[in-house]
Amino acid sequence: MKSITVHYDQKPIYDIVISESFDSLLDELNKLNIKDRRVCIISEDNVAMHYLPIISNILEGNCAKLDTFVFPEGEKSKNLDTVKQIYQKLMESKFDRSDLLIALGGGVVGDTTGYVAATYLRGIDFVQIPTSLLAQVDSSIGGKTGVDFDSYKNMVGAFHQPKLVYINVTTLLTLSDRQFNSGLGEIIKHGLIKDASYFQWIIDNKAGIMVRNNENLLEMIEKSCNIKRMVVENDPKEKGERALLNFGHTFGHAIEKLMNFELLHGECVAIGCILASHLSQKKGYLNNNDIQQIEELFHFFNFPAFPKQLDIDRIIDVTKSDKKMEAGTIKFILLKNIGEAFITKDLTDEDLKSIF
Amino acid sequence: MKSITVHYDQKPIYDIVISESFDSLLDELNKLNIKDRRVCIISEDNVAMHYLPIISNILEGNCAKLDTFVFPEGEKSKNLDTVKQIYQKLMESKFDRSDLLIALGGGVVGDTTGYVAATYLRGIDFVQIPTSLLAQVDSSIGGKTGVDFDSYKNMVGAFHQPKLVYINVTTLLTLSDRQFNSGLGEIIKHGLIKDASYFQWIIDNKAGIMVRNNENLLEMIEKSCNIKRMVVENDPKEKGERALLNFGHTFGHAIEKLMNFELLHGECVAIGCILASHLSQKKGYLNNNDIQQIEELFHFFNFPAFPKQLDIDRIIDVTKSDKKMEAGTIKFILLKNIGEAFITKDLTDEDLKSIF
Repeated sequence: MKSITVHYDQKPIYDIVISESFDSLLDELNKLNIKDRRVCIISEDNVAMHYLPIISNILEGNCAKLDTFVFPEGEKSKNLDTVKQIYQKLMESKFDRSDLLIALGGGVVGDTTGYVAATYLRGIDFVQIPTSLLAQVDSSIGGKTGVDFDSYKNMVGAFHQPKLVYINVTTLLTLSDRQFNSGLGEIIKHGLIKDASYFQWIIDNKAGIMVRNNENLLEMIEKSCNIKRMVVENDPKEKGERALLNFGHTFGHAIEKLMNFELLHGECVAIGCILASHLSQKKGYLNNNDIQQIEELFHFFNFPAFPKQLDIDRIIDVTKSDKKMEAGTIKFILLKNIGEAFITKDLTDEDLKSIF
Repeated sequence: MKSITVHYDQKPIYDIVISESFDSLLDELNKLNIKDRRVCIISEDNVAMHYLPIISNILEGNCAKLDTFVFPEGEKSKNLDTVKQIYQKLMESKFDRSDLLIALGGGVVGDTTGYVAATYLRGIDFVQIPTSLLAQVDSSIGGKTGVDFDSYKNMVGAFHQPKLVYINVTTLLTLSDRQFNSGLGEIIKHGLIKDASYFQWIIDNKAGIMVRNNENLLEMIEKSCNIKRMVVENDPKEKGERALLNFGHTFGHAIEKLMNFELLHGECVAIGCILASHLSQKKGYLNNNDIQQIEELFHFFNFPAFPKQLDIDRIIDVTKSDKKMEAGTIKFILLKNIGEAFITKDLTDEDLKSIF
């Protein structure tokens, strides 16, 4: 078991516990005094099927009252209707400000539960138990919560830090290949934006990662969580450096939307990372060898190719209406080198079009 | 013109400007660099009628783009439907994180606009221009934002501090007597919970206050804003002392709800203050003379009497389902003396019934 402490304003705020089981979960929750608190586990159907009985069993008798709320899996649930249903559930169970929510599932569950926790009674505590790779290394850390609105991703949200992130890497074994690989999109991104040696480590260990070797998973998740921790500690409210995490996301979000969410988030991020790498080369940064390494690694993990049916002008239009847009200019993340990202606002429509 | 600076964690966060006109508004807004920002003024129809043209005129040409959104006045608008309409408006106008909202109106406008500002793109800046007495001395200060949900008051919300509170006391002249007097409920409460000399000042100046004498209004609003500032600075997230501001609110909210919001918030608070004063006497604190002073002052300002048609048991039930309830016990605010409130969790149902 490993533990990483995340700080805010130099103060320790919560731990990320990385384990191979749920054996330590109760100990960690007891540190939050769950004995005296009502707890509601919020999950999605495909995850609940595997893990809700296990987590409920751990909590039953150890908290003041246990409730559960399960919604249909997928991005289509990440909206204000689901949020309202959860508010209603909490009100029926008379949850007050001293009670606790637990998000058990992937990024949709974590973001939605976090948003409910941020806004129910002006904020109650919540715990993340991420079960997808993407949630474990990315969305569960850093306090970004939110839901989609009118098909715009994360348009409505709040910054609200969890009290604990508990990762059991063996939950990754129940993911489909596609779901698992999707999470690797964010992981490869971590190497690309911040740590060339980590990018190389992923290449060196890709076979073990592919077959979900426990040891590789533990090391990889710890490395990625640490990169994410470092970035969010330096810039908790996304005023500067944190935007680097959006590498691959500007095009990624546009593709995700134009494909009606048929591609997974990590898949779109991977496509976006490749596009942004090409753009970095066009602007004189990466070389052919870098591009080849990047493309080969994404290819190894079976990421889908750029969906050729999409209209380039539409992609650029949607990109510009993305919320990363600031006062009409597009804030874009490029790579100076592998392991070193930077923010630019100097790209023209022609620059964007040139790489397609 | 007077200015009070509100701090958070010892750092200055925003100013409360108290003035007799809108003459200084543009100067204050320019400190927030509105020249480069899109601005959306959010208001309610009855206020917009008087002041939206004036404020629009001040802003037109001085910000990057000016939008307005007006909704029907009253508590019935304070809900997630209005919030969603405002999100939509902001998205259509491509508002991003660097833009600004202005709440122009009473408490409903301030709370709703603040909640949109707290959650649109995970938080954008907003300014309060409160035009009701209640909003000027209470709801615009302290960063509590939120809307009602399923007829529960402020069930959904967030803490989000404004960047400026600009009070023009002459807007009080367009309030109906009932609306104006309603705000005095919170003002008398400020004296009762924190400052006996202020309570006495209100008694001494009640005639001037009643006729809305400018000098009396300026002094009263400054005194009340300072009490509110002091309390929220000591306890920004309502973990302790800030709960004292809920004096009169536990019964007040129950009455407001059971009367289907036909009585104004301040009216219900006044009734709640009188009930809580009686309860304080029952528990051995206030004396007959205190009670008489309190009742006479509320009576002078024509506050409605307790609605006799209400069922006592229903009031107590609703009181207990109020969100101030913690783990089954009612957190109640009583007065030790006039000017000195305290929190108790030791009241029984019998205590509550005894005062009716």
